[in-house]
Amino acid sequence: MKLKIIKIGGNIINDKNNLSSFLTDFSQIEGYKILVHGGGKKATEMAKSLNLQPKMIGGRRITDEANLEIVTMVYAGLLNKNITAQLQKYNCNAIGLSGADANCIKAHKRIVKDIDYGFAGDVNRVNNDIIKVFLDHHLTPVFCAITHDKNGQLLNTNADTIASEIAKAMSGNYQVELVYCFEKNGVMMDVDDDNSVIEKINKEKYQQLKQENIIAEGMLPKLENCFHALQNGVEKVIIGNPSIVKNKNQKFTTLSL
Amino acid sequence: MKLKIIKIGGNIINDKNNLSSFLTDFSQIEGYKILVHGGGKKATEMAKSLNLQPKMIGGRRITDEANLEIVTMVYAGLLNKNITAQLQKYNCNAIGLSGADANCIKAHKRIVKDIDYGFAGDVNRVNNDIIKVFLDHHLTPVFCAITHDKNGQLLNTNADTIASEIAKAMSGNYQVELVYCFEKNGVMMDVDDDNSVIEKINKEKYQQLKQENIIAEGMLPKLENCFHALQNGVEKVIIGNPSIVKNKNQKFTTLSL
Repeated sequence: MKLKIIKIGGNIINDKNNLSSFLTDFSQIEGYKILVHGGGKKATEMAKSLNLQPKMIGGRRITDEANLEIVTMVYAGLLNKNITAQLQKYNCNAIGLSGADANCIKAHKRIVKDIDYGFAGDVNRVNNDIIKVFLDHHLTPVFCAITHDKNGQLLNTNADTIASEIAKAMSGNYQVELVYCFEKNGVMMDVDDDNSVIEKINKEKYQQLKQENIIAEGMLPKLENCFHALQNGVEKVIIGNPSIVKNKNQKFTTLSL
Repeated sequence: MKLKIIKIGGNIINDKNNLSSFLTDFSQIEGYKILVHGGGKKATEMAKSLNLQPKMIGGRRITDEANLEIVTMVYAGLLNKNITAQLQKYNCNAIGLSGADANCIKAHKRIVKDIDYGFAGDVNRVNNDIIKVFLDHHLTPVFCAITHDKNGQLLNTNADTIASEIAKAMSGNYQVELVYCFEKNGVMMDVDDDNSVIEKINKEKYQQLKQENIIAEGMLPKLENCFHALQNGVEKVIIGNPSIVKNKNQKFTTLSL
């Protein structure tokens, strides 16, 4: 049995029309599927409205208690429930979930080394059995980027990581295809040239592109997540523009070991 | 099979210690159970922090778009996920749900007669089949007071009503006991005398208490919900202090037809 796991980020979530168009396409995917969404700008906007300065170190959010409240409200409440309600409209029987719900994703507070990331969660275990129950009952799980530590503490967790951890965990039961949708058409040779998509990247090519500094910054953890998934049973990993969910003619990046 | 449906309101949710103590007791209830929670003061506080004035008419919140965002964030995000994570800590396998999730509760925007309540939802249908699936898999549903119209619109819905509608819908499969927990020890003869609990109220007594103005204001819709549930298959309805979940010696009000 095939299972598609699709992760969407801020560029889709921040724009009502983009989101609506993506969710229409997503709802039409046949077979088993799971959606994982990030938070987009909404959490930052909300923090500003509440006169809280979001704390970032090296592009990563530092989650203090006040910011944890905000991401819990925005990711698990506002965004997750609006996405779920829209999918319901398109006759996709979505169920919005955080990692705390049905103990789907247990994490732990990131160990402090040089930087204290606050209430940031690193995933311990995805409960594939209960997610399979949902899929068996024709439900489509929609995960936000909030997990818990099974000790009452919610944790802010990277959505890319959540997608790859779910993909890994489900690969015992399904042939899993993991799709990362973002603002570019894939991994690019030249970020300013939309036509420079690198169509295939294996581990060797990845090392080479890394050394040549073609892959850098935010793409590094994303690709690490991809290879981590491939090394742990996930059959296929794709990176591309959200329209690849529907349009098969468009270029995108396929990753392999 | 017995099923307990317990509704908690603001007095429990607003106080960390009260909530923690209640959730400990709730987690220890044996057998099938469902929790329904209101929103408490948090939504009003959040609206104030965002410089929005909550609009109330006759004790009911008028839900414009900005306020719908807030209740969605606070009820379905902050409160629902914190309650769920705490129950997980106490080894109760909770799953936080809005009405949009798995299409559990379909509602419609309240028809405008004299007052336009905005995005307030009146319940059409509770999906008892999928809720039974959750219970069959040893999950404990935790419902917040947000529903949807199956057309992409989230709706703010009275939590007492949600509890009674779920109780009605589940009564085909279970012997349902519906428990409303609030700040008083039950329905009181004299609101200023904690010992004046009216222990039994049937329909006849209810009419009498109403005429004598002993039951008035906020208690009227609550009791209407109770009798509505009893008339539609719910076996038992109780109103009392949250500690009745554990302490059987305490007085409370039992309703019957």
